[in-house]
Amino acid sequence: MFSWRHWTDYPSTVRGLQSIFQEQEMTETVHDTEGHGYLATFIGKNGRFLILRVHSHGLVTLDLQCCEGDNIAQVDNLLNALEKKMKSLLHGNIRRVKRLPALTRGAAVDRYWPTADGRLVEYDIDRVLYDEDSAYQNIKILHSQQFGNILILNGDVNLADSDLPYTQAIMGGGKENYAGKEVLILGGGDGGILAEAVKLKPKMITMVEISFNVYIDQMVIDGCRTHMRKTCGTVLDNLKGDCYQVLVEDCVPVLRKYVEEGKTFDYVINDLTAVPISTAPEEDSTWEFLRLILDLSIKVLRPTGKYFTQGNCANLTEALTLYEEQLGRLSCPVDFSKEVVCVPSYMELYPCNSYRALLMSEGSLVLP
Amino acid sequence: MFSWRHWTDYPSTVRGLQSIFQEQEMTETVHDTEGHGYLATFIGKNGRFLILRVHSHGLVTLDLQCCEGDNIAQVDNLLNALEKKMKSLLHGNIRRVKRLPALTRGAAVDRYWPTADGRLVEYDIDRVLYDEDSAYQNIKILHSQQFGNILILNGDVNLADSDLPYTQAIMGGGKENYAGKEVLILGGGDGGILAEAVKLKPKMITMVEISFNVYIDQMVIDGCRTHMRKTCGTVLDNLKGDCYQVLVEDCVPVLRKYVEEGKTFDYVINDLTAVPISTAPEEDSTWEFLRLILDLSIKVLRPTGKYFTQGNCANLTEALTLYEEQLGRLSCPVDFSKEVVCVPSYMELYPCNSYRALLMSEGSLVLP
Repeated sequence: MFSWRHWTDYPSTVRGLQSIFQEQEMTETVHDTEGHGYLATFIGKNGRFLILRVHSHGLVTLDLQCCEGDNIAQVDNLLNALEKKMKSLLHGNIRRVKRLPALTRGAAVDRYWPTADGRLVEYDIDRVLYDEDSAYQNIKILHSQQFGNILILNGDVNLADSDLPYTQAIMGGGKENYAGKEVLILGGGDGGILAEAVKLKPKMITMVEISFNVYIDQMVIDGCRTHMRKTCGTVLDNLKGDCYQVLVEDCVPVLRKYVEEGKTFDYVINDLTAVPISTAPEEDSTWEFLRLILDLSIKVLRPTGKYFTQGNCANLTEALTLYEEQLGRLSCPVDFSKEVVCVPSYMELYPCNSYRALLMSEGSLVLP
Repeated sequence: MFSWRHWTDYPSTVRGLQSIFQEQEMTETVHDTEGHGYLATFIGKNGRFLILRVHSHGLVTLDLQCCEGDNIAQVDNLLNALEKKMKSLLHGNIRRVKRLPALTRGAAVDRYWPTADGRLVEYDIDRVLYDEDSAYQNIKILHSQQFGNILILNGDVNLADSDLPYTQAIMGGGKENYAGKEVLILGGGDGGILAEAVKLKPKMITMVEISFNVYIDQMVIDGCRTHMRKTCGTVLDNLKGDCYQVLVEDCVPVLRKYVEEGKTFDYVINDLTAVPISTAPEEDSTWEFLRLILDLSIKVLRPTGKYFTQGNCANLTEALTLYEEQLGRLSCPVDFSKEVVCVPSYMELYPCNSYRALLMSEGSLVLP
């Protein structure tokens, strides 16, 4: 991509490049853009396809598509030659030159996993370890050279071996004392939170599925048990352990039952899908569900208890604000704080929130 | 991008899409790829240019280029319609569908800053605060919604307001006691290390330029003083402070002079450009320079002194290994350790290294 200062006579620029195209024995087609600048395409050997566009405001874009099996060194040399030629043709009038890494499409290993706020990012992924469709979602576990194994659900990066900061943040940032406590984990099917919590010798951990998101999909557990062992260790080898149980069932009836029985917890950790991206909290069933889970969770929380959850990408400010507004509409008053952490594999800053039910009178939780 | 299981009759697939192209009043050109699959291009209104390719191994790629000022909602709708049509034409035979965020070229605000290991990443940049060419390099300071202001030198992301973890790591990860100590900073022109070090009440900090890389370019200081204040605070407002001085001069003569005078430091922090990417340590002048700086630094280090520096992107394993090999070739034995940190704005894991001169006999450094 070239951008230059003065509108020059583009035909001479284009003619100047033609020696290269001819050398490459490329077949040219000029297209009529009806007033939207100059556009020519070139077909070369090995299926190479080049698009040369001169836009009216001084921008030249050059795209070269090539096919699998082509000689990459040759392709790079061609681009280098074109770049060098453009620089000499526009001699001194160039404001900016930008060359982007090649985009690969259709590869066996997909390296592109856009962020929650829609940015294109390429990961250093070199292996596909697991790629299955359950009844509910597509589940991938891919290997990244720097982040380790990454769990991706329906195209969203969920957790990688490198992401202990996420797990630590959602467990209260190292400031909590879990020993001898009763813990409820909603979601968390990758086993990351469970594995860390077990080390802290709690009295009992119950982990139950978020039905709306189906995060403890049996196939997620199966995939992670094998391919995310750096994250989950042995905790997913059995659904029951000395101090924990994993219930692969819908959490809403389970929560309602706990409320009915008066069962309470010291900690509720909600690891479901992030705060909904949509900004229609009245109409969207995702928001409705979120409020339901929040309400039920607060009801099973002891007066001194804490509720931890994740937010979403720090840039989704509108959605995050809406989430905080929902907190003012629960069945009891809550006090909350939040912390933004850098989760290595997310390529974005991520808030994790903790909410503490507000004591209205000593020793009990007032439910209006 | 569509990829499907069985090689189907692509002409019928292509014909199926044509109703959409006709509706859009797009002019078609079919190109002869000489055996490299089907390729057609379409020109539409507003300068839209679409490339439809059917590759022989069951891959269909669809690219739509549009110009500034086009109606993005309409463009999205067109892509949605094509995607929907493709899915129905290939009904059930689709293995994978992938749609990537649009790539913007020629925008006033450039969001693409590839990583050290060559990956394409898009930042959430919305403002250009500073963009100047000094005698040595291009200096940009851009605003990112989540990372704050980012300093980019010659296209490389150097430091952002979010990157305190980098500064802390290169200063020893919070484990050092800088109070009353003498510190030498090589490079560090953004003022980040200086600002943090000053808070720790050292006896004296000297900051001097790395001439090879020209990191303390006067224009870097000027840009950062204004636009990186969250990172540097007030330390760049004057080149001298109560406990520091910034020398905007070539560090090699300065270091040689210190060696000659027998001047030593408790800490040498080398914040020059990362470990060279090239893997030709015998021939490359970058490596030669690096060894020179290492040698001179070790010579001005007290026996109990420590030398801290950055490495490079964790994936550049070959270069990092070579760097560590160089450590075995210095004028005195050294012991080293390293820590990989997550620097938020780098979108990659980054080792920071600390090297400690090895005491051969108590109280003095043996220089062979």
